[in-house]
Amino acid sequence: MKAILVRNLRAANDALAATNRDTFARHGILALNLMGSPGAGKTSLLEATLARLSPIPGRCGVIEGDIATTRDGERIAAHGVPVVQLNTDGACHLDASMIAQGLEQLLRDGFRPVPQTGSFLFIENVGNLVCPAEFDLGAHHTVVVYSVTEGPDKPEKYPLAFQKASAVVLTKVDLLPHLGLGQEDFLSTLTTCAPHATVFPVSAWSGTGMDAWCRWLRQQLAPVAAWPGPEA
Amino acid sequence: MKAILVRNLRAANDALAATNRDTFARHGILALNLMGSPGAGKTSLLEATLARLSPIPGRCGVIEGDIATTRDGERIAAHGVPVVQLNTDGACHLDASMIAQGLEQLLRDGFRPVPQTGSFLFIENVGNLVCPAEFDLGAHHTVVVYSVTEGPDKPEKYPLAFQKASAVVLTKVDLLPHLGLGQEDFLSTLTTCAPHATVFPVSAWSGTGMDAWCRWLRQQLAPVAAWPGPEA
Repeated sequence: MKAILVRNLRAANDALAATNRDTFARHGILALNLMGSPGAGKTSLLEATLARLSPIPGRCGVIEGDIATTRDGERIAAHGVPVVQLNTDGACHLDASMIAQGLEQLLRDGFRPVPQTGSFLFIENVGNLVCPAEFDLGAHHTVVVYSVTEGPDKPEKYPLAFQKASAVVLTKVDLLPHLGLGQEDFLSTLTTCAPHATVFPVSAWSGTGMDAWCRWLRQQLAPVAAWPGPEA
Repeated sequence: MKAILVRNLRAANDALAATNRDTFARHGILALNLMGSPGAGKTSLLEATLARLSPIPGRCGVIEGDIATTRDGERIAAHGVPVVQLNTDGACHLDASMIAQGLEQLLRDGFRPVPQTGSFLFIENVGNLVCPAEFDLGAHHTVVVYSVTEGPDKPEKYPLAFQKASAVVLTKVDLLPHLGLGQEDFLSTLTTCAPHATVFPVSAWSGTGMDAWCRWLRQQLAPVAAWPGPEA
């Protein structure tokens, strides 16, 4: 009984994720599913990213997922970017149905994607390195946000999210000297455990590495934009 | 259908947790369920704790829960403490049935609890601040291990684990100066969100705060020990 129920739930989620993909394509939206542990720095990364990408109207929209509070949504709204805060009331991950509802609300609330050049939809999942990886939201990319303070062994211990990642943003690299660690302590494990991922060591605080990460993001817009190649 | 299934699973888990409590009582075991985000420092805290508590034979046993790898179990075994590594193969939390099996194995593998003075069973849950809080293992105490690098807002954003905690160990306080934060930035939120918890700011690395945490642990042994008051 349990296995059948889970399969049905997954199948229903996958069908809704496919619908989300169609909706994204219709609007020229590139959707990124950001997942990581609580406190990995997802919201800080988003803030630093939006400060670099968002001055163009319609370029960015954000869906914030949290069990409770509207704190992250408020942080994003302060950057003048359209944002919807989803509260899961205990649930440990977002699912495709929540994203469909969130996007509908976001479009009502002022997100005006630009199909000609492509627009970003950043989805910040619930802070959890396990469960979010099991649910397809229809996003084009899984981005794991992984802070150096978590230690170098996490890709081996929480394999699924890393296996699915197109990008791993290794955050808080400014703290490495205080941890007795270097970037190289993380990179070889990531090569093995996140074989499809480009790795971006960054500090949202100091700005280190943010240019390379934002350049990658802009490059990903090309397939969803109607015009050949988005502006830099 | 879904709600009924969840209730049944929860009821089955709760019944097994009650059985675990009986088993713990029979052996004079004080069981502690350590939960926290990936990289919060649970294993490092355990290592530093065992170094202070374990010289007495039969004093400590450990059950390590991880989705994958035996890395944490090996770290504990290196301290000469009986340990069983549970791999959940994707599951995001431990449950009471896993603990029953783990304890059985641990007793076979050389854990010899001492009912007269009481013994500690440390259970390190899967790194996840959400799902483990929903499953009773039969442990006497929920201990949330929460690192300062996760930022001060986590008790509000992940409320259930903190609400259930008898103790919150605030780890990595040696990094506070590099974060521009102080202990006071965490304590007022913890007072509200973890109303039943004693808070222990510690650095497993430098040893700061470890004496107070270990003193609290020894005090908790009294109710499970046959003799009046365990030795210090």
